[in-house]
Amino acid sequence: MIVLFTDFGLAGPYIGQVIAVLTREAPGVPAVSLFADAPAGQPKQSAYLLAAYAAWFPAGTVLLCVVDPGVGGARRALIVEAEGRFYVGPENGLFEIMLRRAAFARREAQCWEIAWRPPVLSASFHGRDLFAPVAARLARGETPETMARSTVPARFADWPDDLGEIVYIDHYGNAMTGMRGEAVAAAARLACGGRTIAPAPTFSSVPPGMPFWYVNSNGLVEIAVNGGRADRLLGLSIGSTAEILAADA
Amino acid sequence: MIVLFTDFGLAGPYIGQVIAVLTREAPGVPAVSLFADAPAGQPKQSAYLLAAYAAWFPAGTVLLCVVDPGVGGARRALIVEAEGRFYVGPENGLFEIMLRRAAFARREAQCWEIAWRPPVLSASFHGRDLFAPVAARLARGETPETMARSTVPARFADWPDDLGEIVYIDHYGNAMTGMRGEAVAAAARLACGGRTIAPAPTFSSVPPGMPFWYVNSNGLVEIAVNGGRADRLLGLSIGSTAEILAADA
Amino acid sequence: MIVLFTDFGLAGPYIGQVIAVLTREAPGVPAVSLFADAPAGQPKQSAYLLAAYAAWFPAGTVLLCVVDPGVGGARRALIVEAEGRFYVGPENGLFEIMLRRAAFARREAQCWEIAWRPPVLSASFHGRDLFAPVAARLARGETPETMARSTVPARFADWPDDLGEIVYIDHYGNAMTGMRGEAVAAAARLACGGRTIAPAPTFSSVPPGMPFWYVNSNGLVEIAVNGGRADRLLGLSIGSTAEILAADA
Repeated sequence: MIVLFTDFGLAGPYIGQVIAVLTREAPGVPAVSLFADAPAGQPKQSAYLLAAYAAWFPAGTVLLCVVDPGVGGARRALIVEAEGRFYVGPENGLFEIMLRRAAFARREAQCWEIAWRPPVLSASFHGRDLFAPVAARLARGETPETMARSTVPARFADWPDDLGEIVYIDHYGNAMTGMRGEAVAAAARLACGGRTIAPAPTFSSVPPGMPFWYVNSNGLVEIAVNGGRADRLLGLSIGSTAEILAADA
Repeated sequence: MIVLFTDFGLAGPYIGQVIAVLTREAPGVPAVSLFADAPAGQPKQSAYLLAAYAAWFPAGTVLLCVVDPGVGGARRALIVEAEGRFYVGPENGLFEIMLRRAAFARREAQCWEIAWRPPVLSASFHGRDLFAPVAARLARGETPETMARSTVPARFADWPDDLGEIVYIDHYGNAMTGMRGEAVAAAARLACGGRTIAPAPTFSSVPPGMPFWYVNSNGLVEIAVNGGRADRLLGLSIGSTAEILAADA
Repeated sequence: MIVLFTDFGLAGPYIGQVIAVLTREAPGVPAVSLFADAPAGQPKQSAYLLAAYAAWFPAGTVLLCVVDPGVGGARRALIVEAEGRFYVGPENGLFEIMLRRAAFARREAQCWEIAWRPPVLSASFHGRDLFAPVAARLARGETPETMARSTVPARFADWPDDLGEIVYIDHYGNAMTGMRGEAVAAAARLACGGRTIAPAPTFSSVPPGMPFWYVNSNGLVEIAVNGGRADRLLGLSIGSTAEILAADA
């Protein structure tokens, strides 16, 4: 399966053109758009989202990852293999958190710089012209060595292991943070949007209109409101801070 | 074919993760998202929409239906077989109108409570973890008895057969009601958004800017404006009333 | 492959129902939605968008094209074959620019009026009931003659070859014009939204907040802002003018 993690937006021709390339170049391999609305042009926030959601897919999955504000500039194009999955995308930190967790798990990742170039490469749509054909080739069983050369990826060592910021706001107004549930004490309170947010196990366990946090179905700390929108109630957007309060605060 | 009827939203990872499960568990069975924006958290309005749109699909279709404000609570998980289609989803009224129409048609429905549980069941995403695997198994030919036990579903007898409320607003601003065209006299006028709305056969048969109602392509009474948006002109949202006026009103 | 070019919107049941028809009538043929948000009810602006994006698909592609404000009226339903691709949709100018370019390329197009009618044809959803089944039949190899009769399509000779208007605004707020890059001098400046817009090769080559134009990955002149939204900065919507300034302006 090829999984798309992009900031292309749901609307417009971008996802459709990428799916068309994948369908043509890797016939019979399902292509599924996971996020078309990753944090636009923000590789750092996207990196925490990607690490949490990619881990849900089985080994053998190819993830086509394009949050690429530097398209047309000098950033390199990468293939990464980690924990049995392939990742294809730009070298801008998007893979930093996933790489770090793979290394921590002592299953070291491998990385290649994509050397292959298509006959025609647009300046603005490498997702379609470069990354999608590479993802398709990997999905049909070609090895990275046929199109790329081994490299050491740039690392972003100053990024934290868990990010105390909002990295995604969903359809319901729920706000995901870049913190894993396992990194936050079960009873911890968060400071977010000028409020103190306590944990709750489910929506139905808090009164209507009250914000709370819980660990979402992909392991991220997420802030929600029973019967309301956390983003509006708390004035949240991508990058808003969500900090763990000291136990006696 | 597996058809998704959900309030997960188009954006974000929810539809993609469910499609990924279906593709993995029922390879080669097409999975199509019909509604990703059913009335959010509103099983009653959703029930009228589902009944109208499910009827369009042929026997053999599996409908994965998740409008589930009680996720994480005590509501049961159901399989329903009615008029040759399978439905999978929560027991909260979402299937009430479909069940009623199937019974009226003297093709009695069968119902099972899902007993199977996945190895890991998140608290908040039963659509992905519970309902999708069950839908996939039904789509590949397993019988309900292999994963569920026969039951009598809860009924919502006080809900009307046709609902005089807005149950969906589409991309164009057209507002669907929960009333079937066959339940409304062809010349009837509706009271909606403070206006009296007369019927018209097509958009082009009324002056620009005038609201009218017609029977949409799935049999629901729908309010539209030629060259405009009915939702904005009439101030409509999900649950706004749309009532049939007495003939002499 | 069957490619959808429509103004049905991403939300709601329209794309899903069309995909369901295509999947049932042409099993195994991939169906991809390219645009679900073509200019709503605006065949003229849509014609320039379609011509630019259809050209990217290989011969053999079937394009299901529905921007159809006249649905339910007297407009005819067409099949067009041009440069090896099939197009199916209403006769309202949507195919004008594509036809003109095919003719210019001396690969003359052929056109048929669809005579086939489905057992049930709704008044408002010919995309699902008429155009999708025809597209599916073409995709599985049936010839136009089995369902349509040769005709000469209506032409819209007063439309320009390149349209100095905004024809699409994407997820990022970038505004595509109906002008091909090859029709505009590389150093030309545009008058758009009360500003004078100069060209730039990439986003990263202009200061943040500055609007510029470039030739997008499908050959259209597109207006963008580095780190911002061109639509908001310049107050643009579909149909806003974007004119080439005289060289000494």
